[in-house]
Amino acid sequence: MTVQRLTVVGLGLIGGSVAAAARRAGVKRVRAVDPDAETLGFAVAEHIVDEALSPEQAAETGWFAGDASDLVLLGTPVAATVEWLKWLAELGFTGIVSDVASTKRAVVAAAESAGGGYRFVGGHPMAGSERSGVVAATPTLFDGAYYILTPTASTDMDAYRRVHAFVTSLGARVVSVDAAAHDEAVAIVSHVPHVAAAALVELASGRAEGAGADLLRLAAGGFKDMTRIAAGSADLWTGICLDNAEAIVAGIGGLEGVLAEFRHLVASGDADAVRGWLAGAAEVRRSLPAQWVPATTRLRELTVPVIDRPGVVGVVATAVSRAGCNIEDIEIDHQSEDSAVLRLVLTDEGDSAVLVADLEARGFAPQLRALEEDEA
Amino acid sequence: MTVQRLTVVGLGLIGGSVAAAARRAGVKRVRAVDPDAETLGFAVAEHIVDEALSPEQAAETGWFAGDASDLVLLGTPVAATVEWLKWLAELGFTGIVSDVASTKRAVVAAAESAGGGYRFVGGHPMAGSERSGVVAATPTLFDGAYYILTPTASTDMDAYRRVHAFVTSLGARVVSVDAAAHDEAVAIVSHVPHVAAAALVELASGRAEGAGADLLRLAAGGFKDMTRIAAGSADLWTGICLDNAEAIVAGIGGLEGVLAEFRHLVASGDADAVRGWLAGAAEVRRSLPAQWVPATTRLRELTVPVIDRPGVVGVVATAVSRAGCNIEDIEIDHQSEDSAVLRLVLTDEGDSAVLVADLEARGFAPQLRALEEDEA
Repeated sequence: MTVQRLTVVGLGLIGGSVAAAARRAGVKRVRAVDPDAETLGFAVAEHIVDEALSPEQAAETGWFAGDASDLVLLGTPVAATVEWLKWLAELGFTGIVSDVASTKRAVVAAAESAGGGYRFVGGHPMAGSERSGVVAATPTLFDGAYYILTPTASTDMDAYRRVHAFVTSLGARVVSVDAAAHDEAVAIVSHVPHVAAAALVELASGRAEGAGADLLRLAAGGFKDMTRIAAGSADLWTGICLDNAEAIVAGIGGLEGVLAEFRHLVASGDADAVRGWLAGAAEVRRSLPAQWVPATTRLRELTVPVIDRPGVVGVVATAVSRAGCNIEDIEIDHQSEDSAVLRLVLTDEGDSAVLVADLEARGFAPQLRALEEDEA
Repeated sequence: MTVQRLTVVGLGLIGGSVAAAARRAGVKRVRAVDPDAETLGFAVAEHIVDEALSPEQAAETGWFAGDASDLVLLGTPVAATVEWLKWLAELGFTGIVSDVASTKRAVVAAAESAGGGYRFVGGHPMAGSERSGVVAATPTLFDGAYYILTPTASTDMDAYRRVHAFVTSLGARVVSVDAAAHDEAVAIVSHVPHVAAAALVELASGRAEGAGADLLRLAAGGFKDMTRIAAGSADLWTGICLDNAEAIVAGIGGLEGVLAEFRHLVASGDADAVRGWLAGAAEVRRSLPAQWVPATTRLRELTVPVIDRPGVVGVVATAVSRAGCNIEDIEIDHQSEDSAVLRLVLTDEGDSAVLVADLEARGFAPQLRALEEDEA
């Protein structure tokens, strides 16, 4: 029932790392598809994947025919991902498709309008590196990282369960959110920070002129930490900026406003106001959670009787994430043709009372109980 | 001739780390002065310093009388440093004074107008931590870090030489720059980046409201790396912002301008322009030097006959830093009452041809030669 035949399309840092982490997790057959022959050769030689073919070869060989793969994971940028979703529909693929594109609205819409026989679950791992390409791929990239899934009203319950289990097996923690909310959130916590890092480098380099080398040589750890991500692939980030343009333009404008507000405080010389502003930011930053550490004890079981129709698992999973809770495992007990019981094993994170109240308000009848260790 | 009796005033992260690094470097007697009894007790108990007294006790005990200390290092913020420079003049201190305040114009001016019998060399280590206080002090804080000295037209040659040797013994690399140029440079590479980090946190936390926890939970490594410094002491950074207000206000305004420019590029959907902007920043960031690694081979000797008057060493030392060269050691051979030969041992970094031409253009007659290993 879990993913045993994985096909990763697009062997960059993320796709390559998914392949490597999947092998580490014991996935039996890991295949890769990439247009670049050198990339394919490297991935096979380094035992990142078992087999590797170009897109045309893979299609001819039947990797995308019927359910020849349990999961096709698209590791391509947004525009290519949209094209692949159409092509997979044409090729008659009937397995599960997921992706890792950094904006989700366009991809989710493309999957739903492609009319394919496959079942789609959108994804976005919140992990990266300033390095890029398959040469930077590592099986540990997702360890302790958040990995967003964006189930919708048409998401199949079993497909979601299997993608969730697959992502968890990579070492990541699943957070389920709505695709539009995702795009706004990542603009603020990922895209705009990248732009700010590049802008700081641009400012330093532009101000510098003759004394430039000197000025940048003085850059201590703080500047380097802050601007490290600005060294990332310009092509990749150009795609991201245009794919998520609306949220990014709003976010940059918001950042300009926050900066102007503080600039006025400094110019006014109002020490209390300056201190208050800085102290507020410091407090929020200190309260940011450290890297997520998998919980191993005190598991809880949440059972939710549901009507077995697409979308239900998305509603429940996003409620779990909203309450800060974490699904360790999902099981689906089919009771009859159209009814089932979702059995979620939760770790001890988050506010389970909020979760239960939220689900009850949405018409569910959830039941929560502590699990004994030998039950988990 | 080197520093053997060190008195550190103000035992915060930097002062405490100077004390710890000085002990590691073999300084015979390390004393600390701080108004906080708990801080003093901790520093003695942890063997960071040999002796510790309050400011009043230290003055009564005679630590600041005559040349009772080779070097008094002021580890206090700018305003307190200015007060100490006046007080040390009143107490009749005749040794060498240096400081670590993060803006230098006000401090250098205070030292020169205090009319004290001491000799002053302004300093600013480009090292830090998101933690603060003596409890975070570590002897390794300066290893591989740049440490700015700001010699002026009145800087004494021997005092500069000894502070340079002391800073080098802490594990840092000295860069000599003009005080005003320093303040503008650190606004761009340190202060404005701190403000930007706080602004990103503020933006994320402000945008969030209800969904706030969710949004910040999604923050991956990039956001955390970029905003780590925003967790720093609000009091410390309030002081810095007001001390260097002019350069910081200009720098924030510059950053707003760079962000607005990029925002317009994204809004226009011009992929080539977006890519060009991002690629430019990525290239500059990738070219930033890694942490400085002390050179151990291929040393060179630069001899410069000079008139032995204050300010000369500052002119030569800033020229060395401008050329990207690094002074490993300074010796002063006094030839007569008013003439001397500066003997600088340089590592193999930087452009020595630029340095020689620069010094010749300033009327010096420098001579450069490679040193055999047994000469160094």
